[in-house]
Amino acid sequence: MTSDSRQVKYVLQESELPREWYNVIPDLPSPPPPPLHPGTREPVGPEALAPLFPMALIMQEVSVDRHIAIPEPVLDVYRLWRPTPLYRARRLEKDLGTPAKIYYKYEGVSPAGSHKPNTAVPQAYYNAEEGIRKLTTETGAGQWGTALSFACALFGLDLEVWMVRSSYGQKPYRKALMETYGAKVHASPSPLTAAGRAVLEAHPDSSGSLGIAISEAVEVAATHDDTRYSLGSVLNHVLMHQTVIGEEAIKQLAQAGDTPDVIVGCTGGGSNFGGLVFPFLREKLAGRMNPVIRAVEPAACPSFTKGRYAYDFGDTAGLTPLLKMHTLGHDFIPDPIHAGGLRYHGMSPLLSHIYELGLIEAVAKPQSECFAAGLRFARTEGIVPAPEPTHAVAACIEEALRCKETGEEKVILTALCGHGLLDLQAYSEYMAGRIEDLELSEAAIAEAMAGLPAGV
Amino acid sequence: MTSDSRQVKYVLQESELPREWYNVIPDLPSPPPPPLHPGTREPVGPEALAPLFPMALIMQEVSVDRHIAIPEPVLDVYRLWRPTPLYRARRLEKDLGTPAKIYYKYEGVSPAGSHKPNTAVPQAYYNAEEGIRKLTTETGAGQWGTALSFACALFGLDLEVWMVRSSYGQKPYRKALMETYGAKVHASPSPLTAAGRAVLEAHPDSSGSLGIAISEAVEVAATHDDTRYSLGSVLNHVLMHQTVIGEEAIKQLAQAGDTPDVIVGCTGGGSNFGGLVFPFLREKLAGRMNPVIRAVEPAACPSFTKGRYAYDFGDTAGLTPLLKMHTLGHDFIPDPIHAGGLRYHGMSPLLSHIYELGLIEAVAKPQSECFAAGLRFARTEGIVPAPEPTHAVAACIEEALRCKETGEEKVILTALCGHGLLDLQAYSEYMAGRIEDLELSEAAIAEAMAGLPAGV
Repeated sequence: MTSDSRQVKYVLQESELPREWYNVIPDLPSPPPPPLHPGTREPVGPEALAPLFPMALIMQEVSVDRHIAIPEPVLDVYRLWRPTPLYRARRLEKDLGTPAKIYYKYEGVSPAGSHKPNTAVPQAYYNAEEGIRKLTTETGAGQWGTALSFACALFGLDLEVWMVRSSYGQKPYRKALMETYGAKVHASPSPLTAAGRAVLEAHPDSSGSLGIAISEAVEVAATHDDTRYSLGSVLNHVLMHQTVIGEEAIKQLAQAGDTPDVIVGCTGGGSNFGGLVFPFLREKLAGRMNPVIRAVEPAACPSFTKGRYAYDFGDTAGLTPLLKMHTLGHDFIPDPIHAGGLRYHGMSPLLSHIYELGLIEAVAKPQSECFAAGLRFARTEGIVPAPEPTHAVAACIEEALRCKETGEEKVILTALCGHGLLDLQAYSEYMAGRIEDLELSEAAIAEAMAGLPAGV
Repeated sequence: MTSDSRQVKYVLQESELPREWYNVIPDLPSPPPPPLHPGTREPVGPEALAPLFPMALIMQEVSVDRHIAIPEPVLDVYRLWRPTPLYRARRLEKDLGTPAKIYYKYEGVSPAGSHKPNTAVPQAYYNAEEGIRKLTTETGAGQWGTALSFACALFGLDLEVWMVRSSYGQKPYRKALMETYGAKVHASPSPLTAAGRAVLEAHPDSSGSLGIAISEAVEVAATHDDTRYSLGSVLNHVLMHQTVIGEEAIKQLAQAGDTPDVIVGCTGGGSNFGGLVFPFLREKLAGRMNPVIRAVEPAACPSFTKGRYAYDFGDTAGLTPLLKMHTLGHDFIPDPIHAGGLRYHGMSPLLSHIYELGLIEAVAKPQSECFAAGLRFARTEGIVPAPEPTHAVAACIEEALRCKETGEEKVILTALCGHGLLDLQAYSEYMAGRIEDLELSEAAIAEAMAGLPAGV
């Protein structure tokens, strides 16, 4: 066997770091519908977002430029862990007995353990450049809050994080990690904001949701001059920052001499998925590749597969602009599954638009299937995946087993967007047989859908 | 500023993975004294170790070959994370205002999060090759137990781990991680072994020690035919497996165009330190470099700086051969500091011999200084170090601040042997002001020293 046929890791030199983010919008057959002002129902202009975001990010949010240069100070931080490795999952392939080739782009090598620093770093940088002193944000499982804590430490910004209460209880080490980087962390809903107090009055035992935590963080940013808000997913600029994942993966697959037939990724707000697939979507739209591109979402929070494509709020309290997206309704509170990062009622408007254009497909998976996949992955590949990417791993395994049936030697690509070293309680519960797949009632969705804003 | 002057990460291709381990013994001016049989006080032959270790490892333990080829199946697993990156700590340097250059070899990228898989993998491999079905081991902070759990999963071996009780309580996620890889974990001292029961009878509240946990694991291996014991540090073959760290670092420093003036590393049993420094010691002995080489140990367990160089048992119950090493006495129970991996009464006999030869020096540091260094490192470099390597980081900072005084542009090299993502409780306690530097009483050491075996 030659050395090459054993290779499992495709690495790039620091000099091969992408220098530009890729904006997929100009390459799409049509642009996504604009966000609307909740009062006037008119498209919001950049100035309406100024209380929440620095102007540089607002301009990226509405940009139609195909490429945006990554500032040197951001590249200097990316260098701490990027380029990230692309792995060929040879041991998992062998365990499955599949003729398929499985590749995964591993983002867990970042200091925060996930893909989230790819956008946390530029967000902190642009805010610091514009003289902002403090950021607020929400976090679900804690990956995003950790990443922004790390980024704020490097750029000298204060940070306050509202962490979804169900995750706050499940993942005490997450809080410790954010504090190690210097952030302040509150369980959400909290009594510190009007939005939090309103939820607590109605539901004192609320396990929280990303929608509620966003309301709290947005409220504090909007009411303090030196403070801005930072979002870890959903928005165009966030997904664009993540495209370094896909750009690197393209170079690394070329090293390996392969082209993907199927790309799968997990979706919560869509940032990991968008970051992986947009550069491949460019190649597909240009006719240079033709991969099937498949989003995998949790059965407990199936915005693509059971949500409606409609204008809705990004948060529970209705403080954000209206976004046209696949949504389960901004009042929807998903079951407290362990993949806290996927518990969002909506989906990136950009990905929603691309889904409507028929350029990607979507499936939903129950968490027990995902943990089984995660455990199998840990015991073959050695890396314990976070609960979120176990959804992607489960879909990889499904596709690879399909190839075993048909004999197809497909090339499957996914992103392992983070490790699960701060989610081990979830694995313990899975191994002890204490993971439930709660049935999502159509009535619960219908009830939340009834709260969708009318007339848009 | 050119791109090169911003470079922080020196990476090697998979093809540059070392193909041989380096055995420093033939290059030393004299060989280390042999282990002795506890009964006869005669040097033990390989056959005496056969109930505990597979023959391949025993032959490596006594080998005088300068190089030993790494088997292909071991290289196949190393490929999952090796070569590891070498970092230039530019942000830490800037924060310190030092003219020194600080480099760290980062072993936390392994699936287990530390350098320990470098030896866990070959140990599991050789045992599996010789038909062994099950391994036993001890673990302190849990890094070693995690690494061996990972390695046993890949080679299909069962594993039982005795985890020092103080760490077992401090680090619940460690147990979950070992179980995720498929291992069984017991708190030590345990009622499952004669050695454990003896300690529990005398000290029902014993916080345990590595020495006690070793006794338990050795006892079970020695009394079961299909079971062998595996040690994560101290022994020659273990340190030799770790030399991949130093071999890679030499190539990476050459990439950077630098030669180390000072090498510092933390020492518990000595495996991380030996792995980093032996290849550099070879260069020093050959006159090709001349670095100062400095071990950093915890003030609570100062085997180099306060121990005696004498024959002693490797474990508390006296089941192992007698090893000539720097020891605090096999009865010594260190305070339950957070750096559980450094709580060992003895020191690698090979490193002890090298220390006696005057080829390396040693210092001891209190844990509060180490956590302060770890926090500073986390907030500048972005990586949260495990409590063990915070000792190395503290010594780097000390050296770099000395350079600030003198203006010397020294090149400092260390190994960041693991991340602290499963040790966050320790950081929380440090930030809350709850970390104590207990004074180590001379009386406690003298009492333990009194138990040293007589007549050797």
